[in-house]
Parts: sequence; C-alpha cells; structure tokens
Amino acid sequence: MQLNETHDINLTSWVSSANDGKTDFPIQNLPFATFRRAGSSEAFRGGVAIGDQVVDLAVVAKLGIFSGLAQEALEAASQTSLNAFMAMGQAHWSALRLALSQALRTGSEHEQALSDALIAQAKVEYDLPCHIGDYTDFYTSIYHATAVGSLFRPDNPLLPNYKWVPIGYHGRASSIGVSGQTFPRPKGQTKAPDADTPTFGPCKRLDYELELGIYLGKGNALGESIALDDADEHVFGFCLFNDWSARDLQAWEYQPLGPFLAKNFASTVSPWVVTNEALVPYRLAWTRDESDPQPLEYLESTKNREQGALDIQMDVAVETEKMRAEGTPAAKLSQSSFKHSYWTVAQMVAHHTVNGCNFNAGDMLGSGTQSGPEHEEAGSLLELSRGGKESLDLGNGESRKFLEDGDTVIMRGWCEKQGFARIGFGECRATVLPAN
Amino acid sequence: MQLNETHDINLTSWVSSANDGKTDFPIQNLPFATFRRAGSSEAFRGGVAIGDQVVDLAVVAKLGIFSGLAQEALEAASQTSLNAFMAMGQAHWSALRLALSQALRTGSEHEQALSDALIAQAKVEYDLPCHIGDYTDFYTSIYHATAVGSLFRPDNPLLPNYKWVPIGYHGRASSIGVSGQTFPRPKGQTKAPDADTPTFGPCKRLDYELELGIYLGKGNALGESIALDDADEHVFGFCLFNDWSARDLQAWEYQPLGPFLAKNFASTVSPWVVTNEALVPYRLAWTRDESDPQPLEYLESTKNREQGALDIQMDVAVETEKMRAEGTPAAKLSQSSFKHSYWTVAQMVAHHTVNGCNFNAGDMLGSGTQSGPEHEEAGSLLELSRGGKESLDLGNGESRKFLEDGDTVIMRGWCEKQGFARIGFGECRATVLPAN
Repeated sequence: MQLNETHDINLTSWVSSANDGKTDFPIQNLPFATFRRAGSSEAFRGGVAIGDQVVDLAVVAKLGIFSGLAQEALEAASQTSLNAFMAMGQAHWSALRLALSQALRTGSEHEQALSDALIAQAKVEYDLPCHIGDYTDFYTSIYHATAVGSLFRPDNPLLPNYKWVPIGYHGRASSIGVSGQTFPRPKGQTKAPDADTPTFGPCKRLDYELELGIYLGKGNALGESIALDDADEHVFGFCLFNDWSARDLQAWEYQPLGPFLAKNFASTVSPWVVTNEALVPYRLAWTRDESDPQPLEYLESTKNREQGALDIQMDVAVETEKMRAEGTPAAKLSQSSFKHSYWTVAQMVAHHTVNGCNFNAGDMLGSGTQSGPEHEEAGSLLELSRGGKESLDLGNGESRKFLEDGDTVIMRGWCEKQGFARIGFGECRATVLPAN
Repeated sequence: MQLNETHDINLTSWVSSANDGKTDFPIQNLPFATFRRAGSSEAFRGGVAIGDQVVDLAVVAKLGIFSGLAQEALEAASQTSLNAFMAMGQAHWSALRLALSQALRTGSEHEQALSDALIAQAKVEYDLPCHIGDYTDFYTSIYHATAVGSLFRPDNPLLPNYKWVPIGYHGRASSIGVSGQTFPRPKGQTKAPDADTPTFGPCKRLDYELELGIYLGKGNALGESIALDDADEHVFGFCLFNDWSARDLQAWEYQPLGPFLAKNFASTVSPWVVTNEALVPYRLAWTRDESDPQPLEYLESTKNREQGALDIQMDVAVETEKMRAEGTPAAKLSQSSFKHSYWTVAQMVAHHTVNGCNFNAGDMLGSGTQSGPEHEEAGSLLELSRGGKESLDLGNGESRKFLEDGDTVIMRGWCEKQGFARIGFGECRATVLPAN
C-alpha cells in the first residue's frame, strides 16, 4: 500500500469537529465501527467516525451517491457486522475509503445529502465491529516477554525460541467485549509458592495488558499460506485491546499448555477499527539488532524491512471509584509504542499461516502486551509493580499494585508524524466489578 | 439425567438395518449430524442416524406429526446448522429424542410418512454439525500427560498442578473439519536438540491424537459459572475428535504459551453427535485414588462421584497408500476408553466457567488424548513409538514411527454394557497429503 490523496494533511471536512486538530477522527482517519442510537433497539449497522460524528453507512447506502466497488463495499459495511465488508479485500476497502474521503471533504457536492446521515458519537452505543471467529494472542514485545519471564521463571526469563519464533497462542473469542464492558473479578485456583496445596477464591492479582488488536480481512484456505509480502492484502485494521489477566491464576495453571482461565474471563476492544490503509503514513523501517538472530526466510523481505514497523503510540490510565466520586481525572500509568515490537504484523500473519492454518474475515490477532524498553513504558501492572513488590502512586492518595474492584482501565492510541495528520483510536474502557 | 424408555434394549425399529446388532446406530442411539445428498448443491440440514439411513429432519418437520417441544426442537434441528437446536436445552433435546424414538419404533403409526424422509448414509455427505465458536482442548488423561511429559520434560513429566487443575488451553476453531478432511503436511520451524539454530521445512513427526469432542448446548452469560451438578444442562453431545499434532514443531514452539502451529493446521471431527442422553446407560462411578489430592469443592459432588465417568471405548487405525492399493484393511494401532479420564466432563465444564468464562451453543471441548494405563492403550504415535524410538509394525511389511504422506487415520468409538444396546459413533477419518 502506498500514500494516496486520502492521507493528505491539507484535507479538511465540512464536518467542522473533524478539523480542530485534537480529534482522534480527522478526515485522514475514517475508522469503522458498528453502532446504533444509545438505548434503542435498532439494529446495529456500520458507521464511520468523522470528528465527533458517526456517518450512518446504512443511510448512505440508500443515497446512491457512490458507485462501483465503493457502493458494493458500502452495502456490505452497512450490515449488522463488518465481516462481509472485511472479507472483500483491499480494492473494496480502498474504494470506499476514497469515496468517503471525497464526500466528507470541504466543498463536496454531497454535503447536504450526507448531513442527514450523521449522528453524534455522544448519542450512540457500539457493538463488536464483527463476529470474531478466532482470536490469537501474540507476544511481540521482547521487553514484556523478558520482564514477565523474569517473574515467572527467574532463571530463564527469555526462552531460546523467542528470537526465532513469533510466539503466539489461541485465546477465547466468546468473552471479547466492546469498550464499556464490565465483568466480575474472576475466581479460580491459586497456589502460594510456599503452600503445599492450592486454594480457591477471587483473583488477588488482577491486571490489564496494553495491546493492539489486528483484524483480519480476506482469509486464506486451509492448507494455503499467506506470504510475508502479501500480508497487507489480508489485514483490515487495528483497534486497542485490553487482554485482562489474572496473574495468580496464570502462575499456577499455565504449564505446560499456556494461559487459560487467567485470560478467558474477559477481553476488551475499542469500538473503532482504524484501517491498515489509514496507518500507511506511520510506517517505519523494521530492524533487527545485528547481534540477534536474523529471521528465517519466510519471515524476511525487503518490504518488511523497509516498512514493517508501525509507530502507534498507546497509553493506559486507571480511574478508581474515588476518582469518580471526587471528579478527579484518571491516573496515567504508562505509555509505549508498537514500534518497539520485536515482530511485525506481516511476520505474525506469515507465521500464523505458514503451516496452512486458515484465517476468516473478522479473526483477530492480539499484538501481545506492548511494553517499551524503559521500565515506565511497561504495558501491565505486573511489570510496573515489579511483580507486586512496588506500589504505584496514583497521585490522589491512592496506590495500586494490582487492580481493585471498581477500577476502570482506559486505553488510548494515536499516530503522529511530521507532515501528516494526527489520527487516534478513540478509547478502550472497561470496569472490574466485585467477584460474584 | 435418568434412564428412560429410549434406552430400552428391547426397542427395535421398522428400519431393519437398525436391528442387526452390529450397526453403530440402533434406535437407542439417534445421533445428530448435518448432511446433504453427496455431490449435490442442496443446503445442509439436520439429520438423525438410524441403521444405515439418515432421517432428513427438514422433511419430517413439514409432516406435522410431532408437536410441542419436540416440534420446536425439530424445526431448529432441521436448519443448516444445529446451533439453534443445541441452544434450546435439555427439555427440547429430550422431547425430540423421545418423539423420534417412538416414530422410528417397530409398529409406529408414522412408518409410512417417515419412510419418505430416509436417505441412505452411503449417498450423503456431511458438514460440521454446527458452527464451532470456540474450541478448548483439555488434557484429561493422566497416562497421556505423564507419557508425553516424560518425552518433553524428562526431569519433570507430570507438573505439580495436574492433579488439582483440569488443564486445558484454547485451540483453533477455523481449521476443524469433518470426517473426510484432507490437509497438506504442515511446514514450520523445528530445532534439533543438538543444533544451534532452527530450520524450516515440512513436519517430520506428524501425529494424531485420539480424543472425544464434547459439544456445548445451552450457554452461560459472561460472569456466570456453571455449577458441577448443572453440567448436564449444558452438554449436548459427543463426537470423535482427531487433534492432529506436529510434534517437532510443538517441541520448539510450545514454551511458554503452549501449542500453536503444532496443532492449528487441522483437526477432524466425526459427523455424528451422540447425545449426552444417549450415553446415560454407560455412565460409571468416578473415583480418585486416595493417595492423590481430592478435588477442590467446586470440582466435587456426590453426583459426579456416582455417575461422572463415561465408558466410551475408542480405537484408532491407519490405512496407508499401500493398503489401499493392495486392498488390505487398515491396521489397528490402539484402543482405550474415556473411563480412564482423570477428570469428568462435568469437571471440565465447571472448571472452564468458574472464572466467568462464557460458553455459546456449539462450542467444543476436546477431552485431550485418551491414553489408557497400558502402553498399548496410548492415543498417539508419540507415545506408541516412545518418542520415535520404536517402529510400529503395521502387519503388511510397513511400519510407522510417525505418519507418512497418504496415511489415513480412522477413529471409531462405541459403548457396550450388559443389559443395554451397543451404540457407536461412526467414524472419524482424515488423510495427510504431501506438504505444499
């Protein structure tokens, strides 16, 4: 994918809130979600964010102002889930993006018609953007893998396969919810290191994980692989992703087959899917330290070296019950960037399918917790509190080692680059309730 | 669930092939599948096996001979997938089972009408019985866990959590196919123990795993748990399940997050789902050695002790290209029973949801490889060949340590008990093709 007119920093929209320089959703972004009026029993349908508004794609589809691939894509994207649209592939995705960019631009002949398709974001509620058939979580931050490994396996923090294999595992799709999700604190078995037997009860070391979610678009047939340089044809877009984790359950259960109940009680995505195409300006060269193993051939290409990395900045904050009661803002806990990832999205896609495993449209990949190289850039409390040894001061008299009931975790993401617009991901927010 | 008239050994059917004493599908079984005429472009729809015939439920639904819950269930079961039927719960499942049992009995007034709804099994093809939203694989055979553990971790074969936690992990749903599936030998990274670096190529240690698949029916909401004694309300039925495994990929990739590419290239289910109700006669008391830890409270009940185990016998055979060319029968490799499982189905269900994880109708649990206590009862080649150290003689001049291209693996399952009919699962068959 290349830069094109939709990325031009000089574009403005006749939707004035898109031009304030602060919104996550200028006309250069145009992310997708499914939505309906809050509190209504309307069917969910596809929408595109522009400033503080949602473009109701079901309304636009009936206007007949688009044609060809853009109209085909529009009709698919106006359904109750985005799966059919995601399955269409890059030509359709790009055609609809270009048509929406043109129709929403200052001076567009369609301003009058499209004005009737706008609904304020403040008045809508969101569903998952698509049916997520399978969800895979990767482990692409070497800083996270090393820090967590040192807590779970002090003698052996980074395993010998890490620098060769984009490590991943299958997660639970059914418990993925959209921003606004609430869930009870999970219960389960834990065993203290010095105890002879495990005990059962509410998790005492509840944590978030700051991740990106990557939605697959066009799939592949069972037995076929997606080559590294073809990954863009299959990656639809990105969201923020909180992979909630019960660290005490995890420590006791995870060997030999990996995390299970420690992860599958809830995971939260942001409602807006920022398209792979919208992110083209923020691509970076991907490098591998010369002292590290270089990738095997199926994970190596010039294209991946030249533009495989993505500078998506992400931060995470916690809002406690006390903060809500006192009207004080959420406390920022850390900030990092996906540019630190040890493996690129294309490498995740190529690796996942190299054995013939098949993707379907709407499948999701988690990036793994995106911790940066510095301790204060860690993407989980487990790391920030050094395994629960240090308290984090929240600045209002409260502190945290792990999450408490009533805590709301808020993740944000954005991209900034000289010569290009700042685009954002909206927010991913969810709240821990007391154990049932 | 209790024994009822549908389990009576004295029942016979007007479908004569159901009464030969050899069929997997006497009138006491009545398993469900989705099917269509082989080679046609008909829609798949629900069917029930009786002898060598399929009862076309879409045809029966139009006859209007059932009423109440049975008719409601019938209409749901005649759709293109069984998910809606599975979601209805035990009252509907039982009502339809009873109505079908009565209508298919010798002397039924509906013989004439139902005769038109029969299609020979030899003339149909099957789809997956339902959309499998999430698939979880358990690890319930302590004999398998110990044998495999001793190969992957000679110093530490059975981990300390095994006797406390029903160990499980999430698998890949997209690559589950129905009996008859073919797939290319997977490729991937492997590393020889004495090598400094991994290499890439076709799997050299391709294996099957002899498992049961357990289909969930009625689900639970996120945050709610299913109590041990309520599991029967949520378990729809059972199939045979081959969890193909690439052992050399697995050894290199599986730490710390579990198996991934070693498992997700293909998994195969048998087409027929034998209902939980049909299996009531073959339940057994479940015991735990007094020298072993006894289950924590959420995994312990009188009901589970009295009837938690299930004596489902299973065997596995391999049919090589040479056997097909020479017309010789497949070579049986091993036989075992699910009665050896260290954990019961109800314990799997209670454990999986104790943290609030939600099930949807059609979700599947794998039992894990069902190896029995004796070496020759092992459910995988990895165990039978002692990690590839010993060849298995196939009796026709061929031998195997692991699977070769062209090998077809055939699994069968059945239940037998004095005073009750023998019922079977049909077969689960799939073939390894050369690597792409």
